[in-house]
Amino acid sequence: MTNKVYAGIDLGGTKILAVIVDDNGNILNKSEVSTNAQEGSDAVIRRMIELISKCLDKSQQLVSIGVATAGTLNTGEGIVAYAFNLGWSNVPLGQLLQQAFGVPVNLENDANAAAYGEWAVGAGRGTKDCVYVTVSTGIGAGIVSGGRLIRGRDASAGELGHITIDWKGPQCPCGNIGCLELYASGTAIGRRAQQLAAEFPEKASALTGKAGTTNSITSRHVAEAASEGDELSASILKEAGQALGAGLVGIIHVMNPEVLIVGGGAASIGAPLLDPMHQVIADRGISNMAAGVRIVSPSLGKEAGAIGAALLVFNTVS
Amino acid sequence: MTNKVYAGIDLGGTKILAVIVDDNGNILNKSEVSTNAQEGSDAVIRRMIELISKCLDKSQQLVSIGVATAGTLNTGEGIVAYAFNLGWSNVPLGQLLQQAFGVPVNLENDANAAAYGEWAVGAGRGTKDCVYVTVSTGIGAGIVSGGRLIRGRDASAGELGHITIDWKGPQCPCGNIGCLELYASGTAIGRRAQQLAAEFPEKASALTGKAGTTNSITSRHVAEAASEGDELSASILKEAGQALGAGLVGIIHVMNPEVLIVGGGAASIGAPLLDPMHQVIADRGISNMAAGVRIVSPSLGKEAGAIGAALLVFNTVS
Repeated sequence: MTNKVYAGIDLGGTKILAVIVDDNGNILNKSEVSTNAQEGSDAVIRRMIELISKCLDKSQQLVSIGVATAGTLNTGEGIVAYAFNLGWSNVPLGQLLQQAFGVPVNLENDANAAAYGEWAVGAGRGTKDCVYVTVSTGIGAGIVSGGRLIRGRDASAGELGHITIDWKGPQCPCGNIGCLELYASGTAIGRRAQQLAAEFPEKASALTGKAGTTNSITSRHVAEAASEGDELSASILKEAGQALGAGLVGIIHVMNPEVLIVGGGAASIGAPLLDPMHQVIADRGISNMAAGVRIVSPSLGKEAGAIGAALLVFNTVS
Repeated sequence: MTNKVYAGIDLGGTKILAVIVDDNGNILNKSEVSTNAQEGSDAVIRRMIELISKCLDKSQQLVSIGVATAGTLNTGEGIVAYAFNLGWSNVPLGQLLQQAFGVPVNLENDANAAAYGEWAVGAGRGTKDCVYVTVSTGIGAGIVSGGRLIRGRDASAGELGHITIDWKGPQCPCGNIGCLELYASGTAIGRRAQQLAAEFPEKASALTGKAGTTNSITSRHVAEAASEGDELSASILKEAGQALGAGLVGIIHVMNPEVLIVGGGAASIGAPLLDPMHQVIADRGISNMAAGVRIVSPSLGKEAGAIGAALLVFNTVS
């Protein structure tokens, strides 16, 4: 007897992670290798094929392969149109994997795949309407609505870091003005700390003590200092958390989700960032929408993207 | 031989509009009566039943009824939980119509129903990812993604007027801060004109000439004066259009739509409001998402909500 299984790959600039899951998203096997993108796309794809083969055993019948990756994708054709972190342009990844294994292949944006994984078998399990936001260097999101992943015209939906929260504010590298990411990302927290430390050096001794120089302060130093009682750091995180809350109020009003999963490195800062976020959502959200949202942490860990990519075969596309 | 038909009703505080459509959304018959909400929900529902009956002929087999209405809905149970404009609370509208006709009944938020209608058989026809925004007294939206209406947990999705575009701005009656609606709705345009006319009466003669008094200026006066070359009015509309553009950039980044339909009374102001909106989207949107969006006017007219409500029976809910 053979068991039907689904392969999921998280293809990153540094590592390739493969999982084999059953139709409940349980991980049956997993493996990871370095991407070594500098060797070119053929070598990377060969490594992906070896990785999947290594993870499968003879009792298993592979049904499909899902790949989560960054960059601009043509999901219909299975083509990675452009991926800066891999140095790829117009790589027919779907076709090559399909030829190797004889099964359908789905490509998906990595943030969307992780959101789908967390929704299907993680912190959003059992809901129909779920927003997953990651607050790290940047801010990204994936949205499941009515039990289906929101992909948009070219699978680019979910760029929550680039909604405007200050329409007369500063310009973002993306070209837009006053993006959420300018106020609430890890990068923004570090930048704000550097600015304030330069302006008020007498208040920033805890930060410069950790970082060495003003220009070396990062969000990690701010988080550490805040946890040790540093006032300036606490106020920086409060401001960032309030900005995050303001952005999330917008997405709550647009998507009316049941659960909001907040993950990513900066989110692991915890209360000093998240309490002000919760407060803004409670104070400002339209009551029937905001009061009913459960705000939770992700539960799948680093395999979320690969699991989501594997399970996306169940996300029937109309 | 009988023909399968679908009834759609737009239940408003002033009028009830019923349409009978075929499965392509073509209107086979329609009729309208006054709501007379002050007579109570039983009388209103009786009028709805009479209206549908009057519109049907013997060759037609009614398959389903869809009702578009404002207020807080429990769509699963078919209950109008609360509707300010009708004075209703906990009215089991779905059940009563279902008993009268013996067919399934769907309730839907009126903005969402109109969006679905425009998507299915109007200006968004043939696409999968469509955002419909109405700019009138307030700003609302309905979103179709991957060929399905986004409803959210309690059918309240699409409150685009209440996304934050100025997170340190003034408070909106909804409770949120710096909502799009405070800058770009018809109400906002009129309010801004009143403020500026009070502050700079010498520049506002065209407006006060039309309105009589400063406090009587509305967005209609601003639109008229702008079309006649009044500078103050043009600058007010430019500012509102830019705010609208800033909000729409956010929704483009989150939903990655193929088509963006801009309708409603204020949108009919045309170029003085919409040109600045287009400019902001072109200047600020992430290029692969913003450049590909077609921005168009609605095409169904006032029947959009009723048609959408009728056709929502095809929006299979997972």
